[in-house]
Amino acid sequence: LSLLTTHPLPAHPFDSAIALSPLAPGQYAGHTSPAYANMVGPFGGIVAAQMLHAIMQHPLRLGEPVAFTINYAAALADGAFEIEAQPARTNRSTQHWQVQVRQAGQVALTATAITAVRRETWSDVEHAMPLVPAASTLAREFPPVPMTWVKRYDIRPVAGQLSRVWDGSGQADSLSRLWLRDEPARPLDFCSLAALADVFFIRLFLRRATRVPVGTVTMTVFFHTDSAQLAEVGDNFLLGQAVGQNFRNGYFDQAAQLWATNGELLVTTSQLVYYRE
Amino acid sequence: LSLLTTHPLPAHPFDSAIALSPLAPGQYAGHTSPAYANMVGPFGGIVAAQMLHAIMQHPLRLGEPVAFTINYAAALADGAFEIEAQPARTNRSTQHWQVQVRQAGQVALTATAITAVRRETWSDVEHAMPLVPAASTLAREFPPVPMTWVKRYDIRPVAGQLSRVWDGSGQADSLSRLWLRDEPARPLDFCSLAALADVFFIRLFLRRATRVPVGTVTMTVFFHTDSAQLAEVGDNFLLGQAVGQNFRNGYFDQAAQLWATNGELLVTTSQLVYYRE
Repeated sequence: LSLLTTHPLPAHPFDSAIALSPLAPGQYAGHTSPAYANMVGPFGGIVAAQMLHAIMQHPLRLGEPVAFTINYAAALADGAFEIEAQPARTNRSTQHWQVQVRQAGQVALTATAITAVRRETWSDVEHAMPLVPAASTLAREFPPVPMTWVKRYDIRPVAGQLSRVWDGSGQADSLSRLWLRDEPARPLDFCSLAALADVFFIRLFLRRATRVPVGTVTMTVFFHTDSAQLAEVGDNFLLGQAVGQNFRNGYFDQAAQLWATNGELLVTTSQLVYYRE
Repeated sequence: LSLLTTHPLPAHPFDSAIALSPLAPGQYAGHTSPAYANMVGPFGGIVAAQMLHAIMQHPLRLGEPVAFTINYAAALADGAFEIEAQPARTNRSTQHWQVQVRQAGQVALTATAITAVRRETWSDVEHAMPLVPAASTLAREFPPVPMTWVKRYDIRPVAGQLSRVWDGSGQADSLSRLWLRDEPARPLDFCSLAALADVFFIRLFLRRATRVPVGTVTMTVFFHTDSAQLAEVGDNFLLGQAVGQNFRNGYFDQAAQLWATNGELLVTTSQLVYYRE
């Protein structure tokens, strides 16, 4: 009996953050998480994870995520919101999803996703993982930014770090490499992968070391993995690499990859980011 | 009077293909174009152009496209279809769009897009255009594929061509570079750019030189340009580069860029492609 009255282990902050309450088929109530707060509103990665979580919980889901695109139409205010995730088309082995987050009667985010039943085929990682020192040989570093959400990740920079002085100097290129995982460590799943795809810092800041307002407007994540492979990765570090290809008149892109330590390329992702000045 | 009875110049096949008939605000009737036929149904790039065209014609559109994601939920059958394009959220300088194509009562495609009013800011092309021979020094080549739509493009390969024999030999990497433009030449606009983003041949075929069923399931296009810059490009060639990063269990990605001859990077784009075996 005493076992039943023992307090349960506290949930991982990531699991608490993405928890949703079902309202109707495909409709869920969610809430922003102070643990993943950004400068204004929540970290974009946690919102991506929440929206993907709505799909993962849907009783009609077919297969596992292969592609996910999220559009940040408005800054979420701290507080409650509603998610609706519905299949738009279900085929034999693929399913197409449309997702919306509404807050205060307005659309704040839209997303589309594809889930699929995968079969074993010829496979090859063409973009090989760069050779870098192991995560265990590097120290965790707190990036020089004040947002709460960065505390939820163990980030070990390898190359291309943010400047610690905002002196406008900048770097010749925006390439970064870093080891990263949830903090505390947590077994990887599709939702946490979607969030990890958004952990890279603002490429513009690497180039300019100048503070200007910025915000991701859209992110696309391609999942080159499956549950069995994710179970093998467990709570190990991933190697992330990100680079900006073009910065022009208020918008720049970021192209990124996430590899497991065994060289499997789990995610390729791109995003477009607004900036002022 | 004789002038009035003279036959007008025939429309460019691209303009005929993307023509839509308004049915209601944001609702249009469209039709597949035999000129852009693929093996089965239409070329995916022309469908992307048609869906973006619905946004471009919408009376409430704010600004110009900065991002566009299309999901190929089902193969379009040759014939008529309906497009609905509606703004999901309109902000001060950005607007988020949701688009659907329906055929025979079912959703065949979904898309999201962001249009925006851009302002001049600090800008830099970080991914520089590779140094390659000028398009004028190279010959137009017809790729060794039977689809009609390839005749609508003037393609001048620079590196990484499809094998002319399906002998399973394949290449060590899937990097291609090619000059490309509409055929006949046509002044560039956002719709034709969206189609050009899908002109690259199947990365898997470069790697394997083996015929297997394939099909793009989703494509994201980031536009780093504006009408004024497109007017400067006019009907000149663009340099395209594409590479696959990972091929795994039925899906591979393609990351690509389109540069103007002056080195401006007009488009960065990624897509996920299904393959069998």
